[in-house]
Amino acid sequence: MMVRKIDHLGIAVKDLDSVIPIYRDALGLELEKMEEVPTEKVRTAFFVAGDSHIELLESTDPEGPIAKAIEKRGEGIHHMAFEVADIRAAMAQARAAGLQLLAEEPKPGAGGTLVVFAHPKTTRGVLIELVQKPQK
Amino acid sequence: MMVRKIDHLGIAVKDLDSVIPIYRDALGLELEKMEEVPTEKVRTAFFVAGDSHIELLESTDPEGPIAKAIEKRGEGIHHMAFEVADIRAAMAQARAAGLQLLAEEPKPGAGGTLVVFAHPKTTRGVLIELVQKPQK
Repeated sequence: MMVRKIDHLGIAVKDLDSVIPIYRDALGLELEKMEEVPTEKVRTAFFVAGDSHIELLESTDPEGPIAKAIEKRGEGIHHMAFEVADIRAAMAQARAAGLQLLAEEPKPGAGGTLVVFAHPKTTRGVLIELVQKPQK
Repeated sequence: MMVRKIDHLGIAVKDLDSVIPIYRDALGLELEKMEEVPTEKVRTAFFVAGDSHIELLESTDPEGPIAKAIEKRGEGIHHMAFEVADIRAAMAQARAAGLQLLAEEPKPGAGGTLVVFAHPKTTRGVLIELVQKPQK
């Protein structure tokens, strides 16, 4: 199997601080870290959910991708990310089966990862990210 | 931590058979089973993603909940389900922290599970399901 697991779910929110209690207190998830990612124009909060993470995303810029997504579809689940062993092999397989990817080459993501997104037009409305973890 | 893991992600689709190749062939996920659930008015396809599942949901009835969801918001991620050890304790904690649950008592779900949903109004647009697995 090419996909190892769900790496994380990205959830678009308007106001991070007011949503954190839902995941931390109401659901009892461990808040692992908070981080601002200027290149993506987001503030994030990461929660542990077993072997995966829940990533809350608040836009720091009204023109950022998360602000735009909320404008279009409201708050809610924004994307799902799958961990793959070999992102270039995964990209080749996805393309061969008809998915359109948003980049020719994987891009550097947080913590030494390589990432790429598939166009939701080709995945029936689901924004899917592929993530390759750094080699140990 | 109350939540053990992401049990599954439910994805609303119009036509199950045409979406299966995206998850099976393009992403390389293992198709574990297909099942019709008349009580929920859905046909489902379950894929393995590490320790979690991706569940595609096609409505078998134009008045079913999945048909209604697609009418309102289009195809896409419909809900996320967390496995909890003790669903009644989880429900009490969620209620105490302000979540509104869609039932007073957990309901029997597939395979001997107990399940309950939280109202998306109280979770910022995310339909969250809690699942307790049968005791072994």
